[in-house]
Amino acid sequence: MDELTEPLVQGNRRALSRAITLIESTRPEHRARAVRLLSELPPRQALRIGLSGTPGVGKSTFIEAFGKMLTAQGLKVAVLAVDPSSARSGGSILGDKTRMETLSRDPLAFIRPSPSRAELGGVARRTRETVRLCEAAGFDVVLIETVGVGQSETLVAEMSDLFILLLAPAGGDELQGVKRGIMEIADIILVNKADGELRETAMRTVADYAGALRLLRKRPYDPKGFPKALPVSAYSGEGLDTAWAEMTELADWRRAEGHFDARRAEQARHWFLSELRAGLLARLDRPEVRSRLRKIGDAVARGDSDPDRAAAQMLGWLAGPGDSHDHPA
Amino acid sequence: MDELTEPLVQGNRRALSRAITLIESTRPEHRARAVRLLSELPPRQALRIGLSGTPGVGKSTFIEAFGKMLTAQGLKVAVLAVDPSSARSGGSILGDKTRMETLSRDPLAFIRPSPSRAELGGVARRTRETVRLCEAAGFDVVLIETVGVGQSETLVAEMSDLFILLLAPAGGDELQGVKRGIMEIADIILVNKADGELRETAMRTVADYAGALRLLRKRPYDPKGFPKALPVSAYSGEGLDTAWAEMTELADWRRAEGHFDARRAEQARHWFLSELRAGLLARLDRPEVRSRLRKIGDAVARGDSDPDRAAAQMLGWLAGPGDSHDHPA
Repeated sequence: MDELTEPLVQGNRRALSRAITLIESTRPEHRARAVRLLSELPPRQALRIGLSGTPGVGKSTFIEAFGKMLTAQGLKVAVLAVDPSSARSGGSILGDKTRMETLSRDPLAFIRPSPSRAELGGVARRTRETVRLCEAAGFDVVLIETVGVGQSETLVAEMSDLFILLLAPAGGDELQGVKRGIMEIADIILVNKADGELRETAMRTVADYAGALRLLRKRPYDPKGFPKALPVSAYSGEGLDTAWAEMTELADWRRAEGHFDARRAEQARHWFLSELRAGLLARLDRPEVRSRLRKIGDAVARGDSDPDRAAAQMLGWLAGPGDSHDHPA
Repeated sequence: MDELTEPLVQGNRRALSRAITLIESTRPEHRARAVRLLSELPPRQALRIGLSGTPGVGKSTFIEAFGKMLTAQGLKVAVLAVDPSSARSGGSILGDKTRMETLSRDPLAFIRPSPSRAELGGVARRTRETVRLCEAAGFDVVLIETVGVGQSETLVAEMSDLFILLLAPAGGDELQGVKRGIMEIADIILVNKADGELRETAMRTVADYAGALRLLRKRPYDPKGFPKALPVSAYSGEGLDTAWAEMTELADWRRAEGHFDARRAEQARHWFLSELRAGLLARLDRPEVRSRLRKIGDAVARGDSDPDRAAAQMLGWLAGPGDSHDHPA
């Protein structure tokens, strides 16, 4: 058994941090150890909550207030981040502890920023594995935050039990700014800043989104009334308890009806296929393949070879002489 | 030599239509013949113009008026379509001849709708090949139209020498509706309906987009003043000649500076890699692979196997015993 497994399962934070670092490493010997470590974890379950919101909606403040409310109830809360920008910039603004100062000092909370300098696909795998580490370490709730950009929301939804969309109060015209695809994967829409001067606007925004949600196709894994839109104020704390009550109600219903496990099963299947595709494409990154790709690519660019025929030739070469369709498993 | 090659090169429309049908076929014997046919084509070049615009901007009317203007100058014009919706609905509204009645009866014009019931990747390959057939058949201009949805605009830009974005007159607030990514690939933005009551709004929209274009990063393959925004009226015909003059000026400059050929070379390289990736992933569609994928996927969904470990095992099986990294080419 790996030396990290026991302390990790006992909830030791240092062991958890070290295990995550191991998982984020790209060195082959670290990867081998990570795979072994993952296979040793007990099957514990946390409630995995995906949370998306564009910059400015008050995501950090919400996580801080929501997280503190949960830890006050004795629940252990982990906060992870999937930051598509970190793939490009090498830095991440998500999961930054300085943005959640109080929560980061809470002994029942654990905050981990998005791994930097990694591709989104790599970030997805590492985050999924980190979720499992957190579950094994006894966390009750794992919050996975992301920003509303590109594919990251879908990635996070595919690794969450519940997907929450956090929005700011807005005029009716801005409603269309939320992509339909995101509306369709949201389980609960929370309109933040429902306090002070913005309270009324926030309530109207809630009503607008509630209306928009009703127009969407009914999903088989929703009880009556879901998906729903609710007002919250991360600043005053108002509505946070209701939001949590709705989340647990939804999760409990899905558990009772079998949707919870069915969804996790489908997610596992999805990730299997996704990893398989990524692994297949990774063959093109092998040094001897890359050099050949460059040569053939040059010939194609010069016009000496046709893109489609060159691709077919390269595929034949990649298959190699042993790639009969009926070789033994 | 294929019996279609000679009549095709002589500009026989029936031969061109039959060759395109051959290229659109998924039957292996048709595919083999298509590949042979493509290898027999002489290296003629047309100006490949990608054209995108959302429904309602007057795309058909524009193509009809623009196409007629070109054929009136004695130029042979082919109109192709990449319709992302045809992949789903099995039908296409793009390239529909009834939408361009006058042009479709013009002996110098050739209109071909998007192949139906095909995946977007398949549509892309077939359109590229159809472009080459049209070039071999002596067309001077090949217009490739698409709608501003998802990835189709990027696909079309990747097979065009010039990329034109057709827009409708709009208030300043709507400017942000055009995705930045599309602005970045546009060479010329045409604001249509610059006539009658909408003329003034159209001119303002032109100014807005000209301003927005100036804020974008300078591209090495643009002469001074490009990318630019211009008003046109497909209805009255105003501005069409100027638009065409700007297109040829841009294409001529790029030819003289070497950017034209360099771009086609990069596009060929891109399509080679794109076809290669698609071909690699297509291995997962083989019947014996699919049945195994289903079985392992079930085990993963049941929790009997881990997504990542199962993917690694499946990759090993796909590689097979002959997949040594140094096998002979």
